[in-house]
Amino acid sequence: MIDTPFFNIVQDGLVLVEDKIRSQADGHNLTLAAALNHLLTSGGKRIRVVVTLLAGGMFHADQDRLITLAAAIEALHTATLVHDDLIDGALIRRGIPTLNAQWSPAATVLTGDFIFAQAAKLAAETDSITVMRLFSETLATIVNGEITQLFSSKWTANRENYYNRIYAKTASLFETAASAPGLLCECDRATIELLRRYGYEIGMAFQIIDDILDFTGEQATMGKPVASDLRQGLITLPALFYLETNPDDPILMGLLKSNFCDEDCINNLLASIRNSGAIHRSMDEARQAVSRALEALHQLPDGRERQALEDLARYIVEREI
Amino acid sequence: MIDTPFFNIVQDGLVLVEDKIRSQADGHNLTLAAALNHLLTSGGKRIRVVVTLLAGGMFHADQDRLITLAAAIEALHTATLVHDDLIDGALIRRGIPTLNAQWSPAATVLTGDFIFAQAAKLAAETDSITVMRLFSETLATIVNGEITQLFSSKWTANRENYYNRIYAKTASLFETAASAPGLLCECDRATIELLRRYGYEIGMAFQIIDDILDFTGEQATMGKPVASDLRQGLITLPALFYLETNPDDPILMGLLKSNFCDEDCINNLLASIRNSGAIHRSMDEARQAVSRALEALHQLPDGRERQALEDLARYIVEREI
Repeated sequence: MIDTPFFNIVQDGLVLVEDKIRSQADGHNLTLAAALNHLLTSGGKRIRVVVTLLAGGMFHADQDRLITLAAAIEALHTATLVHDDLIDGALIRRGIPTLNAQWSPAATVLTGDFIFAQAAKLAAETDSITVMRLFSETLATIVNGEITQLFSSKWTANRENYYNRIYAKTASLFETAASAPGLLCECDRATIELLRRYGYEIGMAFQIIDDILDFTGEQATMGKPVASDLRQGLITLPALFYLETNPDDPILMGLLKSNFCDEDCINNLLASIRNSGAIHRSMDEARQAVSRALEALHQLPDGRERQALEDLARYIVEREI
Repeated sequence: MIDTPFFNIVQDGLVLVEDKIRSQADGHNLTLAAALNHLLTSGGKRIRVVVTLLAGGMFHADQDRLITLAAAIEALHTATLVHDDLIDGALIRRGIPTLNAQWSPAATVLTGDFIFAQAAKLAAETDSITVMRLFSETLATIVNGEITQLFSSKWTANRENYYNRIYAKTASLFETAASAPGLLCECDRATIELLRRYGYEIGMAFQIIDDILDFTGEQATMGKPVASDLRQGLITLPALFYLETNPDDPILMGLLKSNFCDEDCINNLLASIRNSGAIHRSMDEARQAVSRALEALHQLPDGRERQALEDLARYIVEREI
């Protein structure tokens, strides 16, 4: 958790959501309970939970159903991270060892499956068919995005593919986190669409900033090596902007020709991207997304929840940069 | 599919269910569509689908919702098999290469996740909250069973653990296949309980027979080596009955002491179990379960669906033995 004003009004709700997720292991295998605890204490920002609690608060959602919904969203997020880290072979997330760094692949696959099952169970407990449908569609979008990424050839990204990928990976769940409370409260279509748009735009901004931090951050604060995306052959927005303005860059030419980038190549590209206007242009994209999020937000009912959602959107582009 | 009379009245439904599952890949990654096709043509018996279609037919379920429900159940079953085969390192199922025999672990994990997502989506499309809840609980039961099996020490099985394990692995989904149509048709509690009991008992019988076939079957018809459970350190009912009546067997003593069973040890145990009354006692257990299934069934409305469900239950203990 982080200490910013917009967290204050959902502080109690956050504790209830964590208790709810932790209680999902009750009556199940003890090793599972330990795994759930490990995942819960891995220091996520719970930003999706905060969005859900604030959006639900705005429309006076029933507290129990809202907590259940928020727990479902955080569980879904956690389950996808568990399988993601396994697939990427990531050993560290947020500076803490991943599950797959400590457990066998079999145990990691099954723990992810178990958390998926709990997410589905929690979503069903909201007693809303529309929430359930949105939920399962979101899961399908996330997984389909990962499969597309896995099977697409590296180093051939363009901005359209990039936006599709970060929508599937990140913005789709932010969309659901923001709009599902509207479904729960049976808001009208226009309201749900405004919530969805808010979630979509802050989700896109969130991932763009994450991708910028991969270039500008320091290993110590990031908990992973700098330019880890490039090392994995993943071309994100700063690299795309750089490539667009420097199509004749010799390193780049070599890279596209050989489909391979060694440590020297990475460091050269990293320096070139940092010294170009690419970071600045990427920041602009994120800021524009946040502006669009605020535009949608301002058509929703005024009050402390709306103010907090506004602060949250601004925080997304200002964090750690 | 198999050619038995009870399949005839659901033949058309089965085709619709397969089309429904196949169509889940539409608009998604092409490799996924290929994987779904591979899984669909791997020659499963679709016995769970038949149970769902017959139970729904008994209560005049809406055809579209019933097909969707049956597709959800088959998808859930398929998703668990995909992750199971990956975890067990199984290269062959039903004589056909498994997905993990051809694909990377990453692609296999994600394909399983995608099919889970589709199962959840189909379950949500039945528009029944109670079906959704049952569905997510079943998934949790199956996965928890697999995790318990993974973390429990081998060669320490007893009958209670065995029944718990095969309930989680197999009978829980048969229970859901039989009772979810009752929920869909908003049958009264007593009726749903009878359906659930029918599903539970035939599910238990189905797995016991599967475990017997692992001892009595031939590699050619089984599509996997004889005694493959023993080879994996999995003690099933015939072995348990043998152990109960022969606690002083020297091979067994050695096994329990060393926690290891090599090829000679496997062959000796296999011969001892085949020549003991253990297979016969296991068959009796399966037959008793089917009797209990029929007892529940006979309290449900008479008609061609009930007759077909009776034939199906009898077929389960008579197949290939």
